[in-house]
Amino acid sequence: MSVLAQRNALVSDEVEPMPPLPETAQRRLDAFLRGVEELADTLIGYPCSQDFDHTNLSPFLRYAMNNVGDPFGQSIYRENTFEFEREVVAFFQKHLHAPEGQTWGYVTSGGTEGNLYGLYLGRELFPDGVVYYSEHTHYSVAKIVRVLGARSIMIRGRADGEMDYDDLYETLKLRRDVPPIIMANIGTTMHGAVDSLKTIRAMLADLAITRYYIHADAALSGMILPWVEDPQPFGFEAGVDSVAVSGHKFIGSPIPCGVVLALRRNVDRVARSVEYVGCMDTTIAGSRNALNPLILWTAIQRWGEEGLRRRAQRSLDMAEYAVGRFRQHGIMAWRHRNSVTVVFPNPGQRVIDRWQMAPQRDIAHLITLPHVRRSHVDALVEEVAEQLGMVKGEEQ
Amino acid sequence: MSVLAQRNALVSDEVEPMPPLPETAQRRLDAFLRGVEELADTLIGYPCSQDFDHTNLSPFLRYAMNNVGDPFGQSIYRENTFEFEREVVAFFQKHLHAPEGQTWGYVTSGGTEGNLYGLYLGRELFPDGVVYYSEHTHYSVAKIVRVLGARSIMIRGRADGEMDYDDLYETLKLRRDVPPIIMANIGTTMHGAVDSLKTIRAMLADLAITRYYIHADAALSGMILPWVEDPQPFGFEAGVDSVAVSGHKFIGSPIPCGVVLALRRNVDRVARSVEYVGCMDTTIAGSRNALNPLILWTAIQRWGEEGLRRRAQRSLDMAEYAVGRFRQHGIMAWRHRNSVTVVFPNPGQRVIDRWQMAPQRDIAHLITLPHVRRSHVDALVEEVAEQLGMVKGEEQ
Repeated sequence: MSVLAQRNALVSDEVEPMPPLPETAQRRLDAFLRGVEELADTLIGYPCSQDFDHTNLSPFLRYAMNNVGDPFGQSIYRENTFEFEREVVAFFQKHLHAPEGQTWGYVTSGGTEGNLYGLYLGRELFPDGVVYYSEHTHYSVAKIVRVLGARSIMIRGRADGEMDYDDLYETLKLRRDVPPIIMANIGTTMHGAVDSLKTIRAMLADLAITRYYIHADAALSGMILPWVEDPQPFGFEAGVDSVAVSGHKFIGSPIPCGVVLALRRNVDRVARSVEYVGCMDTTIAGSRNALNPLILWTAIQRWGEEGLRRRAQRSLDMAEYAVGRFRQHGIMAWRHRNSVTVVFPNPGQRVIDRWQMAPQRDIAHLITLPHVRRSHVDALVEEVAEQLGMVKGEEQ
Repeated sequence: MSVLAQRNALVSDEVEPMPPLPETAQRRLDAFLRGVEELADTLIGYPCSQDFDHTNLSPFLRYAMNNVGDPFGQSIYRENTFEFEREVVAFFQKHLHAPEGQTWGYVTSGGTEGNLYGLYLGRELFPDGVVYYSEHTHYSVAKIVRVLGARSIMIRGRADGEMDYDDLYETLKLRRDVPPIIMANIGTTMHGAVDSLKTIRAMLADLAITRYYIHADAALSGMILPWVEDPQPFGFEAGVDSVAVSGHKFIGSPIPCGVVLALRRNVDRVARSVEYVGCMDTTIAGSRNALNPLILWTAIQRWGEEGLRRRAQRSLDMAEYAVGRFRQHGIMAWRHRNSVTVVFPNPGQRVIDRWQMAPQRDIAHLITLPHVRRSHVDALVEEVAEQLGMVKGEEQ
């Protein structure tokens, strides 16, 4: 045997199996899981549906899956879920009224990536453009604008959460020489308000501004409005250039995710072929979570369109029920049309903490996603009433 | 009963359980899983370890967990894994030689987010800075620089994958008036080369450039070098301002992830308090995957430092074995010191496809992560030799 052969023989052919979790660590993890179970039952203040169980996907936790690259390409790394991702994208294209063959999209790691993508495309189209977004826009957008190094102007918001269109108009009017990149909210974080794409486009037409970009943040409402009878305009039919919708909000997911759709002609401007993975680098993230497309695909398959419609209707009914219950206690709760976000006066830290509520100055909100039960609403209303010192009013 | 009470009674208190996957969809998913199993066995061309099984974490696939916000803060959304994330960050801080109390970090969705974060901090510190990166840098960096709207200059690379330091020196010398933001590779994607932080810093000193930022992309090697006896300088001790390491590469994960660490004083510049989640918005993504910290935490607990060291040593031994086997066939394979990336001549499309190999012009590589067996190496070497028309040489 040569020296090399001898040394070679020393490399074991065996792969060492991953050891089990040490006992103390396992106990800690078990206790943690029990804590999560308890917390989950009171999660009614954030827009995350909880009526799912994706443990059937657990066999995939054994494999190094990775959706690196463009899901519509052929990656050399074939341990991916591109085929499911493409169907998820097609589902969103359908329900967001994308013109046939003219849009492209992918499954993102969540809202920030989707909004970053949309605004990135807008900035690439109009490098000297100014991003306009209302003060009710999700807090991540200020960060995104900073990351992009884009110029931006925050537009005043109305008390009900919609953009102050007069302020937008006046601001646009003063800067007709620079293309606007308008960030529209299809369901604001705090109030569930839908900015009127019709009004915004009418203003642009009035000011004869033809070079503009509109990105819609439809994180929550983008998957509710497709299921209602009389939706506010929210998709490509309403003139958006790109739109981001979350997967972990209305649909629900154990892992934050989303879908971003954009006009293909704008995506082509940033696409770049990459030899290393054998396909186009069109996504913000390179390596991408391959489980999220499976989660969304199985959720869509399991609920079906009718199931999703039923869930949306029930959520809207529950929102209406909650508004009624608050008012029975003399608490001025309200919600926007087609919204599951019920706004009420900030009840203070104790209630906020107990229900993982998102406050904003003098208001708070309950979001009646499909896992929210009447008993949740009743208990919350009682606590808020007590905290605000209200007595139960007469039934109206 | 009043009208309101009557309508309220119509809202069901029951939560509709998620229906099972329809049979045809289930069959398709089962077939897909079998395909993934088969593919996994030939995955030796990308830097993703496959020797894990995280199915024990499947109970968490029932909950809407979300690590929104700064893991070192107290988020109102308590269904998070911050406590595990902080320990993962501490583990990386230790092994990347972070000075006590002076760095901050979080678990990212992968390399792109980590490198974006580092270069974002650099750009915020020096808005007029120029990003310098070698042509061997991961393809995502060109995209990141474009997203950031930063000025950049690509530096020539040496044939072995390291940066061409002479080119860097000459380029820096011509632009001493603008602060450099240097992207250093700690293990290049294609060659596994480590850029010399010592040389880079010596050049900066020589040119009396004191205002600079260094970000290290240590995607793969950042978790290998801590386990070798004589590592190339790679962490904070070598003067980096931030560093990104992947979790799904050496450690291995079913979901792409990573850790980014940065000097706290630079992070503080971009941090912003957000009332909506009750903590600082210091991360690029808002909503963040809470499963990744559990995957990394359990992997660290299960392997332990000694297990990780054993895996690294075995991977390096296997790389050396592979170089020897290639050379026995007269194929000029080689690798860098402390690298598991074995470079050899591009064997053409058939072999590339069969082994999910990443080619780059006239070279390809095998990455001997812990799941790679001697039998993999032997089979690959035979196929490459056949394809390149080599005959088996004499044993040396």
